[in-house]
Amino acid sequence: MTAYPDSLSRLVESLKRLPGIGTKTAERLAFHLIKLSDEDAMDLARAIRDVKQNLTKCSVCFNFTERDPCPICADAQRDKSIVCVVEQPKDLMAFEKAGAFKGVYHCLLGHIALLEGIGPEDLTIDALLKRARQGGIREIILATNPDLEGEGTAVYLRDALAEVAKQKGIRLTRIARGVPAGAEIENVSSAILSDALSGRQTFGG
Amino acid sequence: MTAYPDSLSRLVESLKRLPGIGTKTAERLAFHLIKLSDEDAMDLARAIRDVKQNLTKCSVCFNFTERDPCPICADAQRDKSIVCVVEQPKDLMAFEKAGAFKGVYHCLLGHIALLEGIGPEDLTIDALLKRARQGGIREIILATNPDLEGEGTAVYLRDALAEVAKQKGIRLTRIARGVPAGAEIENVSSAILSDALSGRQTFGG
Repeated sequence: MTAYPDSLSRLVESLKRLPGIGTKTAERLAFHLIKLSDEDAMDLARAIRDVKQNLTKCSVCFNFTERDPCPICADAQRDKSIVCVVEQPKDLMAFEKAGAFKGVYHCLLGHIALLEGIGPEDLTIDALLKRARQGGIREIILATNPDLEGEGTAVYLRDALAEVAKQKGIRLTRIARGVPAGAEIENVSSAILSDALSGRQTFGG
Repeated sequence: MTAYPDSLSRLVESLKRLPGIGTKTAERLAFHLIKLSDEDAMDLARAIRDVKQNLTKCSVCFNFTERDPCPICADAQRDKSIVCVVEQPKDLMAFEKAGAFKGVYHCLLGHIALLEGIGPEDLTIDALLKRARQGGIREIILATNPDLEGEGTAVYLRDALAEVAKQKGIRLTRIARGVPAGAEIENVSSAILSDALSGRQTFGG
């Protein structure tokens, strides 16, 4: 087998360090990159460098930001008394895109997954407890993913926050589970339908 | 909607210029890139820059290379009298990985697709005709893809090469179509089975 040219091999090896990218995908991406215009390729190389050099974590909510605190935490218009707790900055971005939330956030930077060796101490839970103890918060919404690890993390947070919530009068809530907007009942899983039934609410009357 | 931090937006925009990468995939890749170690991220940025700066096309076969002619064309051990014509350098790499071919190559850099505005003049067909006319070639294997465009391109090449092939005594061949090694007959498509039947060869006796 004749090897790839050196610079191409190095590019494929670099791409393979991205999570979830195997040899085949790395090779396909590399061939795409070769075909980019020089300008677009240089832009991308610069963008990768810039993002590593400029992006830091907000010391309040742990969102990615170029300024600390981040624009959301620094925004006087946001309601600091409601904190939405998410697993990752990308979950925060999803809520921001939905535009339905005007409070502030707390990014855990992961979820508890003991089998993978991720315990509560690997997340930003201590910082969340500290925020709760400082006062001024009336609700903490647990918005971890509706999956095994996300639910487990929500249960852990509920217990960890119980004492300070009682002391400070903070309401702990969990985002609703149910049928997703736009779905057809006949096509959703029974787990979703069970959630939708057990979470049913009074309607009119 | 609160925008991404600037450097993150620029990274997402840069990634979206890659063919076949939409907003969702670009965002997922960007979040992966943020999580890379500083060293791995800088390596990737450097690898992208290097590949654009160092990689050129072989003036003989149009494979990607850092030296001209490429290591395959420059290799005295390779049989220059058999030329395998492929669509893209990645097809050449696939043949090299298979290790079954000891001749040299010619990369067309695409296939004829008139509906997409890609005509014969957009490929390296003139250079292939020139190589054929220079002499020293006894066989040209047409190894374009076994799909509509690849077959069409092979037919076009057969006609375009007919005259010089006759003059110079060059044999034109096409790679075999049939059942893929390792496949189960019951699971392959009828198009594949038709190919396998019409291409059948004498076996023993």
